[in-house]
Amino acid sequence: MTDDPGKFPKADIAPILAGDVRAGARLMRDIDDRRETAMTALKALFPHTGKGYVIGITGNPGAGKSTVVDAMIAHYRGLGERVGVVCVDPTSPFSGGAILGDRIRMQRHALDPDVFIRSLATRGHLGGLSRSTFDVAHVLDAMGYQRILIETVGVGQDEIEVMRAAHTTVVVTVPGLGDDIQAIKSGLLEVADVLVVNKADREGADRTERDLMQMLDLRAADRKDVQIVRTIATRGTAEGSGITELAASIEAHRERAWTGPGAIERGTVRAAAQLSELIRALLADRAMRTMAARGGLTEIAHAVAERREDPWTLAESIVASL
Amino acid sequence: MTDDPGKFPKADIAPILAGDVRAGARLMRDIDDRRETAMTALKALFPHTGKGYVIGITGNPGAGKSTVVDAMIAHYRGLGERVGVVCVDPTSPFSGGAILGDRIRMQRHALDPDVFIRSLATRGHLGGLSRSTFDVAHVLDAMGYQRILIETVGVGQDEIEVMRAAHTTVVVTVPGLGDDIQAIKSGLLEVADVLVVNKADREGADRTERDLMQMLDLRAADRKDVQIVRTIATRGTAEGSGITELAASIEAHRERAWTGPGAIERGTVRAAAQLSELIRALLADRAMRTMAARGGLTEIAHAVAERREDPWTLAESIVASL
Repeated sequence: MTDDPGKFPKADIAPILAGDVRAGARLMRDIDDRRETAMTALKALFPHTGKGYVIGITGNPGAGKSTVVDAMIAHYRGLGERVGVVCVDPTSPFSGGAILGDRIRMQRHALDPDVFIRSLATRGHLGGLSRSTFDVAHVLDAMGYQRILIETVGVGQDEIEVMRAAHTTVVVTVPGLGDDIQAIKSGLLEVADVLVVNKADREGADRTERDLMQMLDLRAADRKDVQIVRTIATRGTAEGSGITELAASIEAHRERAWTGPGAIERGTVRAAAQLSELIRALLADRAMRTMAARGGLTEIAHAVAERREDPWTLAESIVASL
Repeated sequence: MTDDPGKFPKADIAPILAGDVRAGARLMRDIDDRRETAMTALKALFPHTGKGYVIGITGNPGAGKSTVVDAMIAHYRGLGERVGVVCVDPTSPFSGGAILGDRIRMQRHALDPDVFIRSLATRGHLGGLSRSTFDVAHVLDAMGYQRILIETVGVGQDEIEVMRAAHTTVVVTVPGLGDDIQAIKSGLLEVADVLVVNKADREGADRTERDLMQMLDLRAADRKDVQIVRTIATRGTAEGSGITELAASIEAHRERAWTGPGAIERGTVRAAAQLSELIRALLADRAMRTMAARGGLTEIAHAVAERREDPWTLAESIVASL
């Protein structure tokens, strides 16, 4: 499967490289279940990836992110591109297909064989959602999807980490979401390459855009070239007002950021984000195994609840025994 | 300082136990900076804690959480209680005092010596915000604050983890935040002990409350007793409509959950959340040191960006070398 079978362990990756949807879904399930075979397959797929363009979409809950994503799918499909979508919902316990409420709206694309949508949710206490997101995006890349859209539902630290792995990050907001200073937090703005004011026909769109421009002025010189796009995204049609402009802004960012001498530096930042998450997840797996050997987390926590032991000493002893 | 000086290392915790604000702030800074002395102090403080009642407040951005928190501070101050507040903002790069925009509104309480407000923000790539939150809440407990309010700004996986460490979790929403299914995600609902419909004078409050009731009906039998409270929180006054009812609902939950036979089990769940975060953070520290010895994360990520190495093999080798 690879040029150097000594370097990458053997895995049957041919169906995935051929774009087989069932094989892809199976590997994504294995990633979710943290199977060793998934690691093997990902390593083997690596030399075949790097062609997909990853676009992150984040922003306030209620800003209409999934409507924007839906319109973007229609836009890229109109250009004949194959589109993979990862929906990251850290507040839901369910991974899989279109289980999540707002995912159902995207089902229009479910019949299109050139659109692949995968929802990811949180799995247990020690996290690892960002890691799964990177791994799944990698599979979509290997499957030949030219556009890979990553949409986050929540707005937290993990979601910002997810966005660091995108080539272009789109932050969506809407007018009238309470105070604007609260609506777009500075950290969210920091990762934005393109800003979208969605539902731009609503009252207050001018003020929201003005506020965003002021916030952009406060940024570092190399991050001032962020474009602000107004959209009135309409579900299931690429003609949603502003979607063509949004796609053009994304291409403009791609041109600025990913061609020329800065590209390898940016690629390093992306890789660092992915590596951090992978290391974090692998360490968490090890900690879980160590705790299981000591009766499990609950048993250990019981001693803290009864105030027989303090959590800091306990945590140090668990980490020391790894 | 402790009954058993052999068990807990020596640390000058007397000023903190006496409620000295400067000593408390200094320790919180040391926690933020991950100083070894902070660990020593926390261990020494542990036998003196367990008296503060921790209330988590989370919910949609724009729901008016900080206004609700502000009114709650006024309420508890009216009862003569001392109040500590931790504001968790994973989307901001700044820790410390009232740096964050919406924190400024709470400054009214800044002159009150019996109110202590601390903002926490994200620090670097490998996280650790939840850990800092637990540690800071522990210091506030040791300082003698009877009510400890933890407010999260974001809504993500980390924020939900933070909420697991509260005695009572309050989830705040508002009418008209787009589709309600999007406004309150199931995971957020899962951690809710009390639900607040804030800005209840807005159109749609009846529908929002009805939707929440339906969502509660779908929950497990032991989690159906969640109360829904309507508030019209007014900044800086305990008379904000519904705040007394909210406090009563919190007390009712405290009575149900934290007295009687279930209390130790619940305490174990809280301790498990704290332990998980601590272990995660300690492991991340170790990973950072290991990577530093190999030229740092950026140097390692460079090999991935140039596609000389795949991230999975690299991450495994780093974890294996710990």
